[in-house]
Amino acid sequence: MLTLNDKFKALEADNAPGQEVRQDAGNIDAIMKGETLEGGFVDFSHGDIDAFTPVPESETIWMQGFKKGGKQAYTEYRGDLDIRKGLAKRLGEFTGKPILPDTELILTPGTQGALFLALGATVSIGTKVAVVEPDYFANRKLVNFFNGELVPIPLHYLQDSNNNGPDIEALEKAFKNGVEVFVFSTPNNPTGLVYSKKAIHKIAALSNKYGVTLIVDQLYSRMLFEGETYTHTRACDNAPEHMITIMGPSKTESLSGFRLGVAFGTPVLIDRMERLQAIVSLRAAGYNQYVFNTWFNEPEGWMESRIKAHQKIRDGLLEIFRTAGFKVATPQAGSYLFPKLPALSVDLNTFVKLLRHQANVIVTPASEFAPQLNNSIRLNFSQDHDNAIAAAKRIVKMIEIYKK
Amino acid sequence: MLTLNDKFKALEADNAPGQEVRQDAGNIDAIMKGETLEGGFVDFSHGDIDAFTPVPESETIWMQGFKKGGKQAYTEYRGDLDIRKGLAKRLGEFTGKPILPDTELILTPGTQGALFLALGATVSIGTKVAVVEPDYFANRKLVNFFNGELVPIPLHYLQDSNNNGPDIEALEKAFKNGVEVFVFSTPNNPTGLVYSKKAIHKIAALSNKYGVTLIVDQLYSRMLFEGETYTHTRACDNAPEHMITIMGPSKTESLSGFRLGVAFGTPVLIDRMERLQAIVSLRAAGYNQYVFNTWFNEPEGWMESRIKAHQKIRDGLLEIFRTAGFKVATPQAGSYLFPKLPALSVDLNTFVKLLRHQANVIVTPASEFAPQLNNSIRLNFSQDHDNAIAAAKRIVKMIEIYKK
Repeated sequence: MLTLNDKFKALEADNAPGQEVRQDAGNIDAIMKGETLEGGFVDFSHGDIDAFTPVPESETIWMQGFKKGGKQAYTEYRGDLDIRKGLAKRLGEFTGKPILPDTELILTPGTQGALFLALGATVSIGTKVAVVEPDYFANRKLVNFFNGELVPIPLHYLQDSNNNGPDIEALEKAFKNGVEVFVFSTPNNPTGLVYSKKAIHKIAALSNKYGVTLIVDQLYSRMLFEGETYTHTRACDNAPEHMITIMGPSKTESLSGFRLGVAFGTPVLIDRMERLQAIVSLRAAGYNQYVFNTWFNEPEGWMESRIKAHQKIRDGLLEIFRTAGFKVATPQAGSYLFPKLPALSVDLNTFVKLLRHQANVIVTPASEFAPQLNNSIRLNFSQDHDNAIAAAKRIVKMIEIYKK
Repeated sequence: MLTLNDKFKALEADNAPGQEVRQDAGNIDAIMKGETLEGGFVDFSHGDIDAFTPVPESETIWMQGFKKGGKQAYTEYRGDLDIRKGLAKRLGEFTGKPILPDTELILTPGTQGALFLALGATVSIGTKVAVVEPDYFANRKLVNFFNGELVPIPLHYLQDSNNNGPDIEALEKAFKNGVEVFVFSTPNNPTGLVYSKKAIHKIAALSNKYGVTLIVDQLYSRMLFEGETYTHTRACDNAPEHMITIMGPSKTESLSGFRLGVAFGTPVLIDRMERLQAIVSLRAAGYNQYVFNTWFNEPEGWMESRIKAHQKIRDGLLEIFRTAGFKVATPQAGSYLFPKLPALSVDLNTFVKLLRHQANVIVTPASEFAPQLNNSIRLNFSQDHDNAIAAAKRIVKMIEIYKK
């Protein structure tokens, strides 16, 4: 059994996106080779909402919520019913299957809040949970925190498109061996891979066969690039009985400062999630909930233009990294890019620190997404276009300096 | 070992304050005796922020935070450093001992968030936790959720003031028997009892002697009524090495709609709480954090006048209940009143439902605060004065109708 000390060591967050400020730079000057690379600071660890600003009028909508007073401050723990009704309709249309606002939807403090509640509602001492590698770093941490048992499932993402996706054989073996919960993100964080229709249908079939609960993190499913298609697991003919879908407006819509997310799915799980929410933080901040009224309700053409702008940055970065000889998958959706680096003369965490101190660029090391991965970095390319391009060129230069 | 089903049964939240809307009224009409009692709806389950409105300008301050953009949206998980600096200074002055903003303070989504993180950082499988009865209902639920073991400590609150307080003998016995964490609220929720200087010093001494971590919920410590004194555990000469103090502006300051709270104390525990916050909901909503700038910074005289107004309501309710012959302790601080009811012909939960359906009044049953208590109700009297007085009179009438 893990002691609390061990448990919290596993939750170490100093390399997590946004926490770099807490890192000790150590003897970085002694390790540094060559000169500082000049250029505007770019923090690829999360999106730049000053470059891609929040949905228009979100602050005005917030003020309308504030003015509603006590009714809006003290909503049900699962969120205000009127807001849930509007969201259920719009999310039902987006995902291709109706959602009952009273029993199948909960509003949460961010998508992170939804993920926490979903795993808290399904994982306890010894529960076996299948987790994709690489995938969003919190998945692993949450399973550990709830005293569950991790069963890693490899994701193929650098092969041809027919062979990319989760290792289905490994998945079936895991399900056979007692896995009760399977959590994954599609589009995948950090690679931008969208699970194919075939993969999603296979996952749904296996979940039904083995009675496995699915937790599907679709945070980035709206930012789908040209020519790509997205399969919503919950709308499959054979969608499993026990499943939760997770989304939120923090990324594509730049509303992270409001901490808003949603989970929708099986009523018994939504009930549990609400009970847990009641002891975690009561509810998503009441006034902020009102801002959900902007979601899937953006001005005409706003989303299309945002996707186009991101695609342009994606293509620019891909060209720079591929010209430099790095292997990197083309993100099909979302704003993450996950280039594989050549062998370096320093370890990956040191290189990431050097990038910050020498090249004024923050990225997230691959080890956050899969413990054994030590040769890739994740970039959130939701940034000012020109700054991002310039920073990517500095990353290439840094690789040249520190290549083995 | 508890199954997830049992665990979530114990987290049942339909009787929790604010969740009454989810209750099935059942056959209430068949049980009801006599006529409906007319009168304006009063929800004593929480404060009425339309009667006692949020701190002036809080929405303007919020807008300033929003306009700061990305810097304010993406703070460290423990909260924005500038805001922590200001708060550390003001909270240090209030509690009588300095706080280091970098290592000893974390901003959380509400005081509930602070409590969740504090218990999550200290309780794991089998950890023995001393919990006062009656006390805030989430304390017990959190210990169960984290797979800890509850050790109940009786609170005396209906005796003379010299004999009120936690049962110190029971506490020492519990500490001797392996308790590792002691969580309590002062002022106590639901009774309004403020722990005496003597009790606090004794608790601190016992914690030191047995190495027990203290989690002290001081949510209501600012609303201290005339003639009362408050002892801050953290400022005792013998304050224990491992302790966390919890506060927030949701109640007295009516800022609940922003979901803001703080925890301050031992750095190693604050570190753990931040790591947990990183997987729970990342951070208190960034823009909302800015509203902390109003806290302990209210307009001259605002707090004094708010306390005075609450004291008037308190005294009015006490008179009504005592005239009717109910035993009720005088709340020394906060806005909770916990009258003991005479024996009834219906069980307490049914009576609470009848109050809602027949008398247009919501209260919280005592069983939420101590499982064996079935003869008291909690009222949050932060309400419009006249409505509260009228509603209390209806409660007395209802007791006359349903008295055994």
